[in-house]
Amino acid sequence: MSNGKPQQQQQVKTAINPTREVNYQDWYQEVIKAADLAENSDVKGCMVIKPWGYSIWENIQHGLDGMFKDTGHQNAYFPLFIPLSFLEKEASHVEGFAKECAVVTHHRLELKDGKLVPTGKLEEPLVVRPTSETIIGASFAKWVQSYRDLPLLINQWANVVRWEMRTRMFLRTTEFLWQEGHTAHATQEEAVEETMKMLGVYADFAENYMAMPVIQGEKTAAERFPGAVQTFSIEAMMQDRKALQSGTSHFLGQNFSKASGIQFADQNNQQTFAWTTSWGVSTRLIGGMIMTHADDDGMVCPPRLAPRHVVIVAIAQKPEDRPRVVEYCTKLAAELRALRYNDEKLRVELDIRDQNGGERRWGWVKKGVPVILEVGPRDIDKDSVFMGRRDKSPKDKTGVTRGELVATLPALLQEIQDSLFARAKAFRDEHTKLIDTKDDFYAFFADPPKKKPNDPTPIHGGFAMTHYNGDPALETKIKDDLKVTVRCMPLVGGEPGTCPFTGEPSVQRVVWAKSY
Amino acid sequence: MSNGKPQQQQQVKTAINPTREVNYQDWYQEVIKAADLAENSDVKGCMVIKPWGYSIWENIQHGLDGMFKDTGHQNAYFPLFIPLSFLEKEASHVEGFAKECAVVTHHRLELKDGKLVPTGKLEEPLVVRPTSETIIGASFAKWVQSYRDLPLLINQWANVVRWEMRTRMFLRTTEFLWQEGHTAHATQEEAVEETMKMLGVYADFAENYMAMPVIQGEKTAAERFPGAVQTFSIEAMMQDRKALQSGTSHFLGQNFSKASGIQFADQNNQQTFAWTTSWGVSTRLIGGMIMTHADDDGMVCPPRLAPRHVVIVAIAQKPEDRPRVVEYCTKLAAELRALRYNDEKLRVELDIRDQNGGERRWGWVKKGVPVILEVGPRDIDKDSVFMGRRDKSPKDKTGVTRGELVATLPALLQEIQDSLFARAKAFRDEHTKLIDTKDDFYAFFADPPKKKPNDPTPIHGGFAMTHYNGDPALETKIKDDLKVTVRCMPLVGGEPGTCPFTGEPSVQRVVWAKSY
Repeated sequence: MSNGKPQQQQQVKTAINPTREVNYQDWYQEVIKAADLAENSDVKGCMVIKPWGYSIWENIQHGLDGMFKDTGHQNAYFPLFIPLSFLEKEASHVEGFAKECAVVTHHRLELKDGKLVPTGKLEEPLVVRPTSETIIGASFAKWVQSYRDLPLLINQWANVVRWEMRTRMFLRTTEFLWQEGHTAHATQEEAVEETMKMLGVYADFAENYMAMPVIQGEKTAAERFPGAVQTFSIEAMMQDRKALQSGTSHFLGQNFSKASGIQFADQNNQQTFAWTTSWGVSTRLIGGMIMTHADDDGMVCPPRLAPRHVVIVAIAQKPEDRPRVVEYCTKLAAELRALRYNDEKLRVELDIRDQNGGERRWGWVKKGVPVILEVGPRDIDKDSVFMGRRDKSPKDKTGVTRGELVATLPALLQEIQDSLFARAKAFRDEHTKLIDTKDDFYAFFADPPKKKPNDPTPIHGGFAMTHYNGDPALETKIKDDLKVTVRCMPLVGGEPGTCPFTGEPSVQRVVWAKSY
Repeated sequence: MSNGKPQQQQQVKTAINPTREVNYQDWYQEVIKAADLAENSDVKGCMVIKPWGYSIWENIQHGLDGMFKDTGHQNAYFPLFIPLSFLEKEASHVEGFAKECAVVTHHRLELKDGKLVPTGKLEEPLVVRPTSETIIGASFAKWVQSYRDLPLLINQWANVVRWEMRTRMFLRTTEFLWQEGHTAHATQEEAVEETMKMLGVYADFAENYMAMPVIQGEKTAAERFPGAVQTFSIEAMMQDRKALQSGTSHFLGQNFSKASGIQFADQNNQQTFAWTTSWGVSTRLIGGMIMTHADDDGMVCPPRLAPRHVVIVAIAQKPEDRPRVVEYCTKLAAELRALRYNDEKLRVELDIRDQNGGERRWGWVKKGVPVILEVGPRDIDKDSVFMGRRDKSPKDKTGVTRGELVATLPALLQEIQDSLFARAKAFRDEHTKLIDTKDDFYAFFADPPKKKPNDPTPIHGGFAMTHYNGDPALETKIKDDLKVTVRCMPLVGGEPGTCPFTGEPSVQRVVWAKSY
């Protein structure tokens, strides 16, 4: 496991049951529950994002939105509904999304025999957007007339719906929240540059905000966005060593501009189709954060995205101590709130609830607050606090003086941020192998034996960096054999070699892995 | 009209055609177009919110969200879809919304004879949320077990859909963006207190951010939210003297807690239904801003919500002047961006486009930027700029030195904010009349004669502060006669009197008006 805990520690009681090693999928659900991030709703496949989870999403939005604006993009908002005739315009796009579209067919309800029934049938049914290329394309066609109107750099924060049969909170839900960037350019070069720039923004965000190392690369044809010329992604390794595609950036060529009629008069007054891109990340990122950092005691929030940077747990076992403990903690909270981390005010929670202090502290551990402080009467006498870092064991606590705490807290948060990234990167590197023979490749991904027949398959495999001749049929065969696919063809570090499956030439090693 | 322009000035050329006085409804659409705020989409009743309009919405969100959090609320996110069985739970709620619900009946599409057709019929149709009391109620029923779980103070930023037959951009659209607060409390008193507190937050926001004076009051039964015990609203007067209901806050009693089963064990361990509230404002607020402040030259943004506080228009008619003008303006922009207004960095636009300076300036006038600066070679020689305030005539421009500008700009923005509020309040007060006889009341609202038969009805009427015996049948009759309704029963300043329509006793004067 990622924290290097020896096997015998599995006997030690943990806050999350089962542990990652015993049953990774159940562990994931239990972390979400213990940290109060989200829950399943009564609507099939749709989740409720609870305040703690939504606060992480707000921090993600805030960080990304700033990066989008710094790179010249503007936000706008387009309709939730897409007429069927719009979807029909781009053939492979329809094919990719038709099977998972929620369709609105009526616009009113009537009570009949005490039951509501749909009435007011629409002339043309509407699809709830699964993505907005076609509806935004219709606007772009109006907005773009001349080369002077380009580039057009637009982003939308929105909900989208894809009717999924098998859902899992944050990772794959029928409705999810995301942002979708849509841009139009005068030349192919500029559109490709935009595609790569936004892929880089995503990688920067993943690594520096989420503390989640990623590989940037291009997708194979099998994994391409429906309608795209090229799809690029950032890929991260989760603690079960599977890959999570965490963000995608698409170069759409002129496919959608032709479908939607996005044309402009160029400098020679020739009508030309624009070159477009789209790119998106979603609430799936929260699933990625959980599976990158959470441990057997619950959620671990990287400081830059944590709903609270620090919590002060006031502990007064004797009622007569309570007033002065509360007063001390309240003043301390005010002092900490005046500090700044990454140019933002410190997010400080003051927990003065009149309940068992140990239980309250464990509640914050499970929620993943980076720094947890405990303050009781004896600490106050020494003008100090007990401090625990969430990147260390919850049993490690150190006394620090108030002065030292105030002087070092912002730096400590960055230290935690950095240590989470370093740990995740070490884990990924440990489970990334250069594999050069078919036998080694199959052995790497083969399911290890289970201790008991009903146990889940033990965690195994990882990223195989293996040459590939680029044949889609080979990729399909390996997928059928091992449930392993090419996650991406990395942008950097590729050297030619030989495909071990065919003996044919290979342009570069690619990342093979099981995935979400 | 609001700016006290004498009648003969209608001859003067204005940027918006028609003017407010000539055709108010067309003027409204033209302002939206000229300021590039939004446009109608190809989806019936749905608009596209363009970057300038969306930026205003982002500023609204930012301001309100801070106020919600300061009053202890947390954001969360609930499903877009509501099962029909949920809607059925609260009888008057269904009745209120059944006629305008978009209904999802299928979850996939198939190509048949080259046309997409819906397939995969759902067992239970889903409604696209028109509001979320019932779906959020289902979550609250799980979250609330004990009095310790209360109060529960939740807000959601979301899109909602109400299938409207007659739509108008921002004011009434099929899909719109809003926030909906939903809270649950242990006692009736606390829920009522919350209802009033959030009404107060809305009034504070309307007056201090939007510079839009409002009257807080209770709605009559006819205008109550479907399922509410009491509905309160803030009401503003638009420049055509009609009322715009700009935000509502509902005390829901135990209606929805009984429908959804939101029960808790009280301190005596008795199972009790919670008392709930809900409250919301929407993108309609942008319509309110337009109709409160915009003039015959376009949009006028109150500084606190303006996408840009100030724009610097660089003017170099001779190519050889361009480099030094651009350099000067770029440095000035950096200097202004370091200033703060209301604890936020100044939002500064630098317009160095190589196009006609006068046209560019008029573009910013129409977009409503509070302060527009023009800088040409001769201004640079004097180290000064030409400054125009959007709350004054676009023809009023003054030279100010750079030093004076930097020293006074934040204060000037607040001066503009205050002057917009004062002007709107003076307009409202001017057109608010105490009316004590039926004849005067009917005369006040009667349509004045048109100059030509095809002209729109001239702007007339306003707010009539008139006593009312509270009889719903009387309200219906007046609505039928004059299209005038009770906008609200104001919270303050009410004294008993006599209803002029019936001679019966009246608790207080109420606000009568035509409305959006």
